[in-house]
Amino acid sequence: MAANGPLGVAVIGVGTMGADHVRRIDGVVGGARVAAVADVDGDRARAVAETVEGCAAYTEPAAAIASPEVDAVLIASPGPAHEEALSAAFERDLPVLCEKPLTPDPDSALRVLEAEQRLGRRRVQVGFMRRFDADYTRLRRTLAEGGLGRPLMLHCRHRNVSVHPYFTREMLITDCVAHEMDSTRWLLGQEITAVTVLRPAPGSGPSEALDDPQLVIFETDGGALVDVEIFAHCGFGYQVRTEAVCERGTARIGDDHGMVTRTAGRWGGEIAQGYLERFGDAYDREVRLWVDAARRGEVTGPSAWDGYAVAAVSRAGVVAQATGRRTPVEMIERPAFYGPGRR
Amino acid sequence: MAANGPLGVAVIGVGTMGADHVRRIDGVVGGARVAAVADVDGDRARAVAETVEGCAAYTEPAAAIASPEVDAVLIASPGPAHEEALSAAFERDLPVLCEKPLTPDPDSALRVLEAEQRLGRRRVQVGFMRRFDADYTRLRRTLAEGGLGRPLMLHCRHRNVSVHPYFTREMLITDCVAHEMDSTRWLLGQEITAVTVLRPAPGSGPSEALDDPQLVIFETDGGALVDVEIFAHCGFGYQVRTEAVCERGTARIGDDHGMVTRTAGRWGGEIAQGYLERFGDAYDREVRLWVDAARRGEVTGPSAWDGYAVAAVSRAGVVAQATGRRTPVEMIERPAFYGPGRR
Amino acid sequence: MAANGPLGVAVIGVGTMGADHVRRIDGVVGGARVAAVADVDGDRARAVAETVEGCAAYTEPAAAIASPEVDAVLIASPGPAHEEALSAAFERDLPVLCEKPLTPDPDSALRVLEAEQRLGRRRVQVGFMRRFDADYTRLRRTLAEGGLGRPLMLHCRHRNVSVHPYFTREMLITDCVAHEMDSTRWLLGQEITAVTVLRPAPGSGPSEALDDPQLVIFETDGGALVDVEIFAHCGFGYQVRTEAVCERGTARIGDDHGMVTRTAGRWGGEIAQGYLERFGDAYDREVRLWVDAARRGEVTGPSAWDGYAVAAVSRAGVVAQATGRRTPVEMIERPAFYGPGRR
Amino acid sequence: MAANGPLGVAVIGVGTMGADHVRRIDGVVGGARVAAVADVDGDRARAVAETVEGCAAYTEPAAAIASPEVDAVLIASPGPAHEEALSAAFERDLPVLCEKPLTPDPDSALRVLEAEQRLGRRRVQVGFMRRFDADYTRLRRTLAEGGLGRPLMLHCRHRNVSVHPYFTREMLITDCVAHEMDSTRWLLGQEITAVTVLRPAPGSGPSEALDDPQLVIFETDGGALVDVEIFAHCGFGYQVRTEAVCERGTARIGDDHGMVTRTAGRWGGEIAQGYLERFGDAYDREVRLWVDAARRGEVTGPSAWDGYAVAAVSRAGVVAQATGRRTPVEMIERPAFYGPGRR
Repeated sequence: MAANGPLGVAVIGVGTMGADHVRRIDGVVGGARVAAVADVDGDRARAVAETVEGCAAYTEPAAAIASPEVDAVLIASPGPAHEEALSAAFERDLPVLCEKPLTPDPDSALRVLEAEQRLGRRRVQVGFMRRFDADYTRLRRTLAEGGLGRPLMLHCRHRNVSVHPYFTREMLITDCVAHEMDSTRWLLGQEITAVTVLRPAPGSGPSEALDDPQLVIFETDGGALVDVEIFAHCGFGYQVRTEAVCERGTARIGDDHGMVTRTAGRWGGEIAQGYLERFGDAYDREVRLWVDAARRGEVTGPSAWDGYAVAAVSRAGVVAQATGRRTPVEMIERPAFYGPGRR
Repeated sequence: MAANGPLGVAVIGVGTMGADHVRRIDGVVGGARVAAVADVDGDRARAVAETVEGCAAYTEPAAAIASPEVDAVLIASPGPAHEEALSAAFERDLPVLCEKPLTPDPDSALRVLEAEQRLGRRRVQVGFMRRFDADYTRLRRTLAEGGLGRPLMLHCRHRNVSVHPYFTREMLITDCVAHEMDSTRWLLGQEITAVTVLRPAPGSGPSEALDDPQLVIFETDGGALVDVEIFAHCGFGYQVRTEAVCERGTARIGDDHGMVTRTAGRWGGEIAQGYLERFGDAYDREVRLWVDAARRGEVTGPSAWDGYAVAAVSRAGVVAQATGRRTPVEMIERPAFYGPGRR
Repeated sequence: MAANGPLGVAVIGVGTMGADHVRRIDGVVGGARVAAVADVDGDRARAVAETVEGCAAYTEPAAAIASPEVDAVLIASPGPAHEEALSAAFERDLPVLCEKPLTPDPDSALRVLEAEQRLGRRRVQVGFMRRFDADYTRLRRTLAEGGLGRPLMLHCRHRNVSVHPYFTREMLITDCVAHEMDSTRWLLGQEITAVTVLRPAPGSGPSEALDDPQLVIFETDGGALVDVEIFAHCGFGYQVRTEAVCERGTARIGDDHGMVTRTAGRWGGEIAQGYLERFGDAYDREVRLWVDAARRGEVTGPSAWDGYAVAAVSRAGVVAQATGRRTPVEMIERPAFYGPGRR
Repeated sequence: MAANGPLGVAVIGVGTMGADHVRRIDGVVGGARVAAVADVDGDRARAVAETVEGCAAYTEPAAAIASPEVDAVLIASPGPAHEEALSAAFERDLPVLCEKPLTPDPDSALRVLEAEQRLGRRRVQVGFMRRFDADYTRLRRTLAEGGLGRPLMLHCRHRNVSVHPYFTREMLITDCVAHEMDSTRWLLGQEITAVTVLRPAPGSGPSEALDDPQLVIFETDGGALVDVEIFAHCGFGYQVRTEAVCERGTARIGDDHGMVTRTAGRWGGEIAQGYLERFGDAYDREVRLWVDAARRGEVTGPSAWDGYAVAAVSRAGVVAQATGRRTPVEMIERPAFYGPGRR
């Protein structure tokens, strides 16, 4: 990076999510520019690169990451491709923003942890963007301040209008509930120790094949109990809600708000239809903070440890879902490298 | 009334409102029975009387009131007929619940005041039922407790789905806003001293002929400023809302609530469509308290003075509406008979 | 009962709940009077009887029920005393309103079912008052109308400010969650087939000894999944909330509402502190409908079968709580006497 | 501006508002940099300039604007200084973002209008930032789509926790209600034709000297009626709310939302305490769009005509406030240069 010049970012994977990050770095966030993009679909890579001045297109992630114009790497390719891209970035000691999941399973995540530790300093921020949402931040602060007493339960709702046809039952856990795994850990400062998955008779239509919705239960090492309703084809809106039940009170985020109309015998408002409508600001803030830190030579935010922990809980969740049984989470001890285990 | 037997009530006027009171005394409120009904429409009187055991039907109010079975009188006939029915009740010294307006104009209301004073004790409760609504009661208590400081403004909304075809522009003031005249006086413990009526270009359809909606401004002898939106053909629901703006905070009643649904991209609930849906409990409580007091030989609740005051403010309001000018309210001094002027 | 005279009611048990019913029959509901009260504490019986004209006091339920002044029986004594009082009422073929639980266990409840069937017609209404609450009624109608599709899950919250010192862990299930057992059955028209009880580390203070709060899971024969948070010492208010998650939308009742104040940097309102504040209207309506039906010689509302079903689910719940295991509910087939099994 | 380099901005006036814009251009908005700042307080100018790399400090606005590093001008000095700074920018034909008011009175605003027209294209965007707020945007779209019918009334609330000691009664109109003047014009696409100011007895403390709060009434050339509560020392929060009353329904923005806590018998949340908390996103969007347009050589957004119109309405408002009388607004015809008068 030229002294004080903008951070040159390589965006790896320019599907929906990656292309949105390109737009964000180009138009919303100051201090950075998209220097390169890579996508297995070369036409797609070129099409995106053409929207940005001075941006090169690649089909090989490693080639993009090797470009001298590149100072930092944003990985938005499918999960199975993450480990290789992370390795390439680690070789150049570049700061990385890696979309969740860090990797698809705890074993590969562990390899990433070990590689990062060998570099001697944090290089990876994992894309758990809810930590940058104003409401989540307020809820965490409220819990930490302690006025409501110790948190005992979290009731979480995670509803999507619909998901892609290739979505699998396992992805309810690994793609959707993964967000609640991280936010539970972050809100409570506790690790998840066991997972149970309960299921009603599914809804009809696309829900039927997915066994959708489900109720996922977490237990934590701090004794908290968390229930997560995941409903991938709820049909009516994108809704993410958390109610924390504490010893002396409750706190709830994620209720609908905005303009209220009254007409034809009804009052109410519109429900957000997509995650960008609900979390767009959080993504902007996430990337801005990553860019700011990278320009200072640092990486902060959710760590590779957080990515590993979610991979471990996801594995237990998939087993719990398949067997119908309470499944303990198997995890290594938290390395000192990643700081103390409780907030 | 037989010692400890139920209170025999004559209901004068059995249109929509009167028939509803017959149902209420018969089925909801304990300690009273409908002994007689009167209506200029004899068929209607007989039809209603037949629904109640031992109830006589009359076309003449005076005849019903004269019945030895009658211990108390509920007047629900049109306003112009009230004075005569009140006189008949006064002759027998009976307790009266008189639907608003007490009488249609301040002069006749003054005659009622004087007649009641000659009887030496309160005989009339005027049907300002909002004073018996849980939310209004809570708002009044909050203002009186003083935690929010002195009330400076009230913002009131009064919306009907629609009104009858014979409704006139004046009735926006005398029939609808009359409720806010009383509730302003009761919430603040102040008299209204001047009225101004402001008007946008009216809505189309039935609103056009009525110059509907309007914004009615009250000034009070305590220095408060009150604005009332009256919208008689709002089309979407029955909505009565008051926001009190005080020195150190605000208090609002009348927001929509109840079951909230989320479907098809919208969240929200249903709006009450009629006054009984919104104020049914208040009517029940009003009549129950009147019956209880009457059985003890007393009359409490909104007094004939309150009826007179609203008649005086209504007259000023009608002038203000016709002239477009701020119009002072002309009232006599409050007789000591009716207690101190401020709460 | 004298033809068309008021229904003479014997109130059995005049602790908090029974005394409140005496007040309700005496002052709120028309068409009935308290003819007798019975309580093991004779002083308490006499003290309550003295507040009502012509009311006799007894220490023996059977003696009160035998009084010729008595046309109907309201049982509000502790659960273990219900079976004997029901028998006495059955001997005289009187209509009964029996506070929940019908009896404390399924075996005794079964004996009541059989005794009622021998009488050849329904004599018992069980006091599941939520069925008379306006919000619950609206939710049930919404689910039945089908616009939201089939119900898949219910999320229920049941929070008390605090409970009595003698409250036991089992009573969380049998006293508190019993309400959700009935409302689940009634809202969905399904029977509960299994119960699981999950628990976080309890809150401190009085919650600790009770293992409070808990999360109770129901499965139903219609494939629905229900979670109930019971929090007996939440400290901040009485809160009962249900969110139904259906195929095409959700419906939620029990959010806080009422007057909203804005002061000192906060907006919001007060939370109900007790069940009478929240369900007082439902109790009034319950007793009014029972009195109206009894005067017609009928008994409607929640039946002895509903009481038995809740006793059976409660037993499974207590086992589930003690063992930590999913526990199937054991129930007899629904007798034809009690009508079809689904709404 | 170097081809494709960042836009060099001169920020004129670096008090609270100007310093916040410096921070925004430097850290939040991409594509621009602060090249120069000017402030009559040279120390302040230098202190701010030192926080930004390569930023020069001036005491003379004209000197800053003349710098060859400067491509665009953001004016955040006090209103009386605006005309001179605008002239200097016009001499160099630079795009300007001018904080409201455009100028303090309609005569000077008219001179600005004329000068801009002589340049032959729009050079000025006026800082009415509410037009960039998501809720205002949604309300305007809803009104324009017409589903609710023609707008008849707007009810606006504008409350500040407190204002500076030097704040005057006139500033309630020219500084605070000026926002509602613009948003009324923008939401309705109508010009304001008359102003009336009504006042209760003021609150005590700092409100007393200001005659605070007040109720300001606008009439528009489309027949709408608008009431604005301005309460400069409400004490509890920064609150900006608008309810549009249309022929077939209402739409309301500005209700409090966010995290809801339940504790100690109360439910509710926090109220924003300052305008940046409420409108920070709108400011970001405003500046971003101005920068984007300026880099394309354009100026869009609220125009100098909007600034002039608000100055004209403000003058009428100050007269109405002083005289207590309804005061017509005097304005020139809208020049064709500024496009058609209705949206």
